Amino acid sequence: MKALVELANKAREVSGVRIYKRNVEAVLSAVLKSGDFWEIVDMSSLPVPAASGIVKVLIDEGILFIDDEENIKLTQKGFDFVRELGIETFEDHSCKACEGRGIPFYANIELYREFLQLTKDRPKAIRDYDQGSVTPETTISRVLFMDSRGDLRNKDIIVLGAEDDLTGLAIALTRKAKSVLVIDIDKRLIDFDNQIFKELGIDNARAMVWDLRNPLPEDILGNFDVFVSDPPETLPAFRAFIGRGIATLREEGGVGYFGLTLRDSSVFRWRDFQISLTSEFGVAITDIVQNFNHYITWDYHSETKAAELAPVKREPKTIWYKSAWYRIEALPGFKRWNEPISDDVFYLDEEGSTT
Amino acid sequence: MKALVELANKAREVSGVRIYKRNVEAVLSAVLKSGDFWEIVDMSSLPVPAASGIVKVLIDEGILFIDDEENIKLTQKGFDFVRELGIETFEDHSCKACEGRGIPFYANIELYREFLQLTKDRPKAIRDYDQGSVTPETTISRVLFMDSRGDLRNKDIIVLGAEDDLTGLAIALTRKAKSVLVIDIDKRLIDFDNQIFKELGIDNARAMVWDLRNPLPEDILGNFDVFVSDPPETLPAFRAFIGRGIATLREEGGVGYFGLTLRDSSVFRWRDFQISLTSEFGVAITDIVQNFNHYITWDYHSETKAAELAPVKREPKTIWYKSAWYRIEALPGFKRWNEPISDDVFYLDEEGSTT
Repeated sequence: MKALVELANKAREVSGVRIYKRNVEAVLSAVLKSGDFWEIVDMSSLPVPAASGIVKVLIDEGILFIDDEENIKLTQKGFDFVRELGIETFEDHSCKACEGRGIPFYANIELYREFLQLTKDRPKAIRDYDQGSVTPETTISRVLFMDSRGDLRNKDIIVLGAEDDLTGLAIALTRKAKSVLVIDIDKRLIDFDNQIFKELGIDNARAMVWDLRNPLPEDILGNFDVFVSDPPETLPAFRAFIGRGIATLREEGGVGYFGLTLRDSSVFRWRDFQISLTSEFGVAITDIVQNFNHYITWDYHSETKAAELAPVKREPKTIWYKSAWYRIEALPGFKRWNEPISDDVFYLDEEGSTT
Repeated sequence: MKALVELANKAREVSGVRIYKRNVEAVLSAVLKSGDFWEIVDMSSLPVPAASGIVKVLIDEGILFIDDEENIKLTQKGFDFVRELGIETFEDHSCKACEGRGIPFYANIELYREFLQLTKDRPKAIRDYDQGSVTPETTISRVLFMDSRGDLRNKDIIVLGAEDDLTGLAIALTRKAKSVLVIDIDKRLIDFDNQIFKELGIDNARAMVWDLRNPLPEDILGNFDVFVSDPPETLPAFRAFIGRGIATLREEGGVGYFGLTLRDSSVFRWRDFQISLTSEFGVAITDIVQNFNHYITWDYHSETKAAELAPVKREPKTIWYKSAWYRIEALPGFKRWNEPISDDVFYLDEEGSTT
């Protein structure tokens, strides 16, 4: 039987992404809990190519097999292996009340109700822009999180390129912000928001079409207290969304929120992002709440690289794609970045797979 | 009436610590919720010297006053000022079930019960070692958090200089770790732990006296999967606790947990810590959960610099000192730091005040 570290190295070769011993353990621990590949990705907190590479290697080694219903299971040899290593079943003690976020969506049930009723016919997530909407519970929890940190009331807030989640709409619905500006590449979302703002007479909120690959116009730079975004996980996209987000901040003490996932990006990439945030952009990270953002599986799932890479064809049955919720605070001397950016690898690189 | 930014600058002069506009807003927002100074520190998430400096400046400016019962209140001028600026009352939507941690302590009620009963006569926090114990609910939630991240079962775990919280004891009580080693400077805690390990026949756990200002012995370096600590917030102490913690890790994928507070350290210092972690030590930060750790107000509160700096003499009525829970993951090439360290500013610097 190969050692875990050898299995990790082999999976790294197969998948082309960075994998270490701990990741193989995490997959085995998850398999003890569920045979569903997408749940295994979720529980092991790995990029899809990494989880998939590990599963494939473990099948090759006779540790796992796929049954007739496309469940991933341990062989007898696999059970012995896992027992020998002392790997135990994945456990999750997350709070049932707040779904582990620390802030329950029902803390403002009126807002949740109004949001749900107004968004019944919201535009569906489409592949063109790497969209994937979070659950309404996530969106409302984001707003309540912001409120709990003093980042909502009487603040000028901009939502950049993340309005498939309708977070800008939810913020506007609180009627607590000073102003809300939503910019997104997708005209359907912009029209949807503006229509509701108009119907409800919310005149301090507006939405406009913008492609974040282009520099932001001058009148947006340095004019906001808070930005919210949800970037694709490539480095160029991170710069375009978060760099520009920081550039919209008025002054030190300005705040940014965004999602970052370990399903399309490794912990190695996360460190790169964190070095960039703290050393280059001059912000401090105040919060990282894992699995805060729950994404509804997108209709175009079967067309993604993730589906292609998966060791099984079976589609996800439940929510499997989650991301962490970051909060950053701009310190004196923070950097406003607003360069043009090329199309190359904007949405997809070797670790990403859900576009 | 002075502008917020002028008030911030003045408070900075008075207190000698870094303060910006947003911090003044946070104090005013908190005063709208409570007149208790310690609750104001908690809600504004500021170092005590900063919150105290701001309150003093706002009193000087006729915006705040202290009433006969030592409540901090807005004057009429203060109310007008706050209304003009659109500052609203502090809101906290934290989950009541899990106290905002995302992991409720009662997810393993047997562990909680056993821990409470065994620790009825635990050693009291003393000032000599900057001690301050977290609530039992915090300790148990830490262990369940670790379990949810795959950092408990069959792992070799070391707890460094933080056993006033009895986290090492709680880990050992799960009987799930492969081994537990507790090191702490306080012989009372070491004896307490070893006594319980012996009584319960937990033979994979042990505790030993160690002063973390000294380098760790060779046999401890590189021998653990997970470390847990709770450092004082000075840079030298951070190195001694977290640098040495990282040095105990066996290999990449090793994990560290520790508390860091904004009550004894500013967000500026946090950025320094984060740069050090990611750029120098070579780890990624995977979790920062604000207000995870709740500290029981220590008996020696009245002797602290915090009490001396406070604008009121009234003692804290509730838990006011909280810290964030960090999780880090060591990446290939991570740095093992184990140098000797001097006594200077180990426990206290200009931002700290609770030692």
